[in-house]
Amino acid sequence: MFQKTLFRVRYAETDAMGVAHHANYPVWFEMGRSDLMRQLGYSYAELESQGFFLMLSDLQVRYQRAARYDQNLQLETRLSEVKSRGVSFGYRLLLDDSSHPSNSPVILASGETRHISTDRQYRPSRLPAEVLELLRGAQQDSPC
Amino acid sequence: MFQKTLFRVRYAETDAMGVAHHANYPVWFEMGRSDLMRQLGYSYAELESQGFFLMLSDLQVRYQRAARYDQNLQLETRLSEVKSRGVSFGYRLLLDDSSHPSNSPVILASGETRHISTDRQYRPSRLPAEVLELLRGAQQDSPC
Amino acid sequence: MFQKTLFRVRYAETDAMGVAHHANYPVWFEMGRSDLMRQLGYSYAELESQGFFLMLSDLQVRYQRAARYDQNLQLETRLSEVKSRGVSFGYRLLLDDSSHPSNSPVILASGETRHISTDRQYRPSRLPAEVLELLRGAQQDSPC
Amino acid sequence: MFQKTLFRVRYAETDAMGVAHHANYPVWFEMGRSDLMRQLGYSYAELESQGFFLMLSDLQVRYQRAARYDQNLQLETRLSEVKSRGVSFGYRLLLDDSSHPSNSPVILASGETRHISTDRQYRPSRLPAEVLELLRGAQQDSPC
Repeated sequence: MFQKTLFRVRYAETDAMGVAHHANYPVWFEMGRSDLMRQLGYSYAELESQGFFLMLSDLQVRYQRAARYDQNLQLETRLSEVKSRGVSFGYRLLLDDSSHPSNSPVILASGETRHISTDRQYRPSRLPAEVLELLRGAQQDSPC
Repeated sequence: MFQKTLFRVRYAETDAMGVAHHANYPVWFEMGRSDLMRQLGYSYAELESQGFFLMLSDLQVRYQRAARYDQNLQLETRLSEVKSRGVSFGYRLLLDDSSHPSNSPVILASGETRHISTDRQYRPSRLPAEVLELLRGAQQDSPC
Repeated sequence: MFQKTLFRVRYAETDAMGVAHHANYPVWFEMGRSDLMRQLGYSYAELESQGFFLMLSDLQVRYQRAARYDQNLQLETRLSEVKSRGVSFGYRLLLDDSSHPSNSPVILASGETRHISTDRQYRPSRLPAEVLELLRGAQQDSPC
Repeated sequence: MFQKTLFRVRYAETDAMGVAHHANYPVWFEMGRSDLMRQLGYSYAELESQGFFLMLSDLQVRYQRAARYDQNLQLETRLSEVKSRGVSFGYRLLLDDSSHPSNSPVILASGETRHISTDRQYRPSRLPAEVLELLRGAQQDSPC
């Protein structure tokens, strides 16, 4: 199972090279995580309101092709690892080709993030059992 | 009295027009306010830790000339109004010409912000007497 | 005629007060302008590719209520003035209440921006007649 | 040889967790690269004006401790690899302890970026010989 997030590149996200600045990609990945969790029925906002945080510990991005202002992008977000004290996500960013479904997809970037589950004081803490179960279910549905 | 803040335009702050994106100006103004308060001996971080916030209610920016990557800018921040339940700041953004002091200054932008003093629950709240006194003193020292 | 843009507050857009940082509002307004022009059939990307820019000269924002992470927001963007050498836009930001259409709308902020039409060298320049006509048509359709 | 960049965490850089949002770290790394090249006597702005770009191809960040609003940070930037068609940088982000030089440094994060040298059309392109020589000299001075 992966979550698909569609969005357009904002003008403010471009830089003097005329392309989307690389620091936006982690912001987009975060949108993908939010969408994935909301889709599972347990939003990240809800998780935080119960005193749990998913602190980022590792970020990796591979940039392949530039994205430009106003382009429609498609972000795929997957759960790649689920443990009681942390989760990892994988990402693939593509040009949105929904209007030309026969075309082979144009991959712009890929990435991974690792997160540590903490409490409000940022001390490592086990995720609630209910959340773990949802995340594990979502991970197993993943084709790869 | 005004606070002088020196900084360089970051690459990430540029946009596809090759100039600093306009949404960075309020971020720079906020740096100016932080510097001004720290200079007064009562940092904004300290104010917040005591349960007071200066919520922005109004922002105005007039853009005159573009700023470019790596340029040295100089921001002047002034207290333009001080009341027990709110303060206003005025800003002037210039090209930093400290290396050519004889030149007339190149003004890039000017602006104002108004803020409401609130408590942690964002309810309007009087600023601490000690802070008010400091801010009023700083305002009166202002030449214009 | 006004353009409606729907979006969610990103986590990266929040600040230590737990609300959307005020410098994001001009970024959202820019999204609204992009959507409005695309809707008119002449996207801003297309305008730029033909050598025309709408340089921001004035920005004004009035903040009324805070926006929070993951909230659905609705931005209304209107053309408030159209001249051969510049245009102005008005904005209203609301909590998206499409799921409770009977509720009275919750206004979070309002704002205006003024823009000067320029060429690639950022010299004032008349907008193409075709674009002017489209913009004027859109302005006259405006109910207020 | 490494470049030391000192800066304060901006309020706009914090998020609802009360700490600097992770997407700012690549922005800070970019500041470090700019400072390093300017220090070498060949600024990145100059490189771009001559038609050369250093496109980011890979980004990696390891986050160890959170940074907070108004903290003084110190970024160390090193050249870790220099080739005719690309360069890599390494980064270490620390709490600035210049006022307590005897303390052991508190490391907040570390990271690497890889860049491909391109021309204005973003085609791979050899860096100018003069620049290569400067970068190689800076790399060899590196203690580790």
